[in-house]
Amino acid sequence: MNRNPLQRVALFFLLATVSAHAQIVPDDVKAGAKALRDQAMKDTIAYELLASLTMEVGPRSAGSAGDAAAVAWAIQMMKGLGFQNVRTEEVLVPHWQRGSISAHITAPFPQSLVATSLGGSPATPEHGIQAEVVRVESLNELRALTSDDLAGKIAFVDHVMERAKDGDGYSAASRIRSCGHYAAAERGALATIIRSAGTSVHRVPHTGSMLNNSIPADIPAIALANADADLLSYQVNTGEKVTVRLHSTAQNLPKMKSANVIGEAPGRGALADEIVLLGAHLDSWDLGTGAIDDGAGVAIVTAAAKLILNHADAPRRTIRVVLFANEEFGLDGAKQYNENLATDIDKHVIGLEADFGAGRVWKFSSRVADDALTIIDEIHALLEPIGIERGKNTASGGADLSPMRKAGMPVFSFTQDGTYYFDYHHTPDDTIDKIDRDDLNQNVAAYVTAAFIAANIEQDFGRLTPDTRRKRSCSADDDDWES
Amino acid sequence: MNRNPLQRVALFFLLATVSAHAQIVPDDVKAGAKALRDQAMKDTIAYELLASLTMEVGPRSAGSAGDAAAVAWAIQMMKGLGFQNVRTEEVLVPHWQRGSISAHITAPFPQSLVATSLGGSPATPEHGIQAEVVRVESLNELRALTSDDLAGKIAFVDHVMERAKDGDGYSAASRIRSCGHYAAAERGALATIIRSAGTSVHRVPHTGSMLNNSIPADIPAIALANADADLLSYQVNTGEKVTVRLHSTAQNLPKMKSANVIGEAPGRGALADEIVLLGAHLDSWDLGTGAIDDGAGVAIVTAAAKLILNHADAPRRTIRVVLFANEEFGLDGAKQYNENLATDIDKHVIGLEADFGAGRVWKFSSRVADDALTIIDEIHALLEPIGIERGKNTASGGADLSPMRKAGMPVFSFTQDGTYYFDYHHTPDDTIDKIDRDDLNQNVAAYVTAAFIAANIEQDFGRLTPDTRRKRSCSADDDDWES
Repeated sequence: MNRNPLQRVALFFLLATVSAHAQIVPDDVKAGAKALRDQAMKDTIAYELLASLTMEVGPRSAGSAGDAAAVAWAIQMMKGLGFQNVRTEEVLVPHWQRGSISAHITAPFPQSLVATSLGGSPATPEHGIQAEVVRVESLNELRALTSDDLAGKIAFVDHVMERAKDGDGYSAASRIRSCGHYAAAERGALATIIRSAGTSVHRVPHTGSMLNNSIPADIPAIALANADADLLSYQVNTGEKVTVRLHSTAQNLPKMKSANVIGEAPGRGALADEIVLLGAHLDSWDLGTGAIDDGAGVAIVTAAAKLILNHADAPRRTIRVVLFANEEFGLDGAKQYNENLATDIDKHVIGLEADFGAGRVWKFSSRVADDALTIIDEIHALLEPIGIERGKNTASGGADLSPMRKAGMPVFSFTQDGTYYFDYHHTPDDTIDKIDRDDLNQNVAAYVTAAFIAANIEQDFGRLTPDTRRKRSCSADDDDWES
Repeated sequence: MNRNPLQRVALFFLLATVSAHAQIVPDDVKAGAKALRDQAMKDTIAYELLASLTMEVGPRSAGSAGDAAAVAWAIQMMKGLGFQNVRTEEVLVPHWQRGSISAHITAPFPQSLVATSLGGSPATPEHGIQAEVVRVESLNELRALTSDDLAGKIAFVDHVMERAKDGDGYSAASRIRSCGHYAAAERGALATIIRSAGTSVHRVPHTGSMLNNSIPADIPAIALANADADLLSYQVNTGEKVTVRLHSTAQNLPKMKSANVIGEAPGRGALADEIVLLGAHLDSWDLGTGAIDDGAGVAIVTAAAKLILNHADAPRRTIRVVLFANEEFGLDGAKQYNENLATDIDKHVIGLEADFGAGRVWKFSSRVADDALTIIDEIHALLEPIGIERGKNTASGGADLSPMRKAGMPVFSFTQDGTYYFDYHHTPDDTIDKIDRDDLNQNVAAYVTAAFIAANIEQDFGRLTPDTRRKRSCSADDDDWES
């Protein structure tokens, strides 16, 4: 699939000799993509898949009974839909159990707090922790404290996440979740409390992994619902000494076996061994039923692939759906998939991931070789009628595709409207009623359009320069890391 | 204060001889009301009271430690603000404790459900209840079942509450809560599950009293959050037999002492012993911090009374603020207040209650003698500039005023925008962040305008014909009862 230098030179001259608007996508491929796009807009399969996954399997965090049920569900579902080469790929995953939690302000004004343990948190001692609260508003304020300030106390990092269409506020908020407790523990804190890394104003706390690069946590960490963080903050701001009592039975257990679930719409002819990768993750956090994160993604990519599978002609390249294990708590499925691929990564001509709910897609971005940008324009022409802008060629592709992108696989990204995503994400509120069927279908339409074209044209998208940077740490120098 | 027949005749001729637009409210009273109205719109006291009550006292259900703390808070607050004759009035209240709850679908697709016990629910047996679910959508469908259908099973009444500006959907929804379990128990059901009598789409269940006329409940009853009712409904609709396991430690304990808290801005001169009653309830359900129900009411009527208290001239009639005990679980405070009044009820020229959150007031209604309607017009002229329409003369006045209204006391009603009220009401989401400061102030402005005029004019509002109807029962004949 990597063209040899002579082919590249020939292609260059071919492109140079036709007009600047040379058409790479043949008319019949465009017509096929347009028909599938329009079919997707009025289809019901994505919603049905999502209902089945959320209502029948429900919560499915790594290593849980729900995780195993989800794998079984996905295999049966893929076979039932007629996908080929349906198989699993074993993945070892961490197994963290939430257990119970209680959090109370004991002074100056006793009140209960709605809280949840963060993924990876150890339990409190059996009798709980009761200590004074020290409130800061940022990671830098926390880092500026010493053990004189924090030893024997509870650190409360009270950062209010900003709402944004692109969900940008999550970056700073989740960094506090995955780095704050290390800094607090170094300074002798007994536990960390954070304000939920979410925008919900409801009494539903936001969970998520507290680990950075899988480094274990020394002290328990919990998140408060926003209203409860307001309450704690109010009491701290009275100037009186505020004490909190925490009790958690969270625990880290031995690793468990889980699996990536894979199914294909096989290609035909000379390009059949090349792969258009459609990815989403099968696991979810345990508080909700994993509708927006990432049941929607599972539904979107599966429905898109199913539409191609049902198309009159088989695609030239193989459409491969991978439902990754454990995205949420370590990206193990993606890492395992990439590791198993070895040099087969070069057969992956493009990757598309869906993992940001089902808000309407408003932007189509790419990260492809420069000489493939004309194709992006041609795909975009078919996406514009469903309300999608043209983005830049700097797409990240998403978390589960990152190991493959770093190894050189080009990616597309569909940016969804995330204005309300963080009202539900990682909370008990992540349930199917938060999904709009028309928006979900518009997502399927976008994915099927791009995937169908990528699978049926002669040209590919080149390769990306491998990304060999070290992993992002919790150092302040890495606070503004771009993925 | 009831005028004698001769006075009435004289008044009739007086009114008949002046123009149809005869002015009853003197210009200086109007000017005073207008000044207080405008001052209220930019005041901060209502919000400060609300913050203090919700953040420092928090949940305060009848008989709880929070209830006692709220009474102490209210006494201190009223004295601190300079109210006169601050006193309590003992009220015996029921003491129900929520305890813990767990609810799980055990088949066909095991999932946890977000649930809460309804006020007055007994506990399940120690080992819980596990039984098949029978789903109906209305009270009438439930009543149509027999013990053949329900004996040994769990009744699930799955009525979806409608959203409305006037909150009208609550009437049907809460009637299921307070009547459904009696019908289910009669037919041998082991427990009742209802869909929350609220409009929230969040994973926060809606509590409230399950009792009708204080008749004890025979079987446990719980409410599911809307998303969880969707989940249970989905599984029932698969056609497979659905079983649920419930465990609750709710309990009804011996009655406790609580209190109405009363404070006054004393009147002066000949009308000083006449009362303009401003009421709200001090208790709240225990899931939230009681911000909209009824911290907002406490803040609105107290702030309105405080503005009158601080006015240059004392009001002619006495402004009396009553913060009633236990509205939520039996209206005991209101009943006790009315009982203690005996014939003093005749000194209550008008009552105003605030108990519907802090949504903007959009309608001003009354229930007064017909010859007082001119005053209502004149008050309304001062309310129109702050966005308030003129309602009818059929106002109910609110729950806590109902014993006094039934005994003949005229009432005003300010109808607030309740479009979102039932997203928060009786749920953990009833917290101060749901209150808009400007809307809260507009409420204070409305109340202070009407109360100031009522306290400072010569004329009164007549008396209402006493309402001697029997209590509303759970019979189908009473389903459409008008209060």
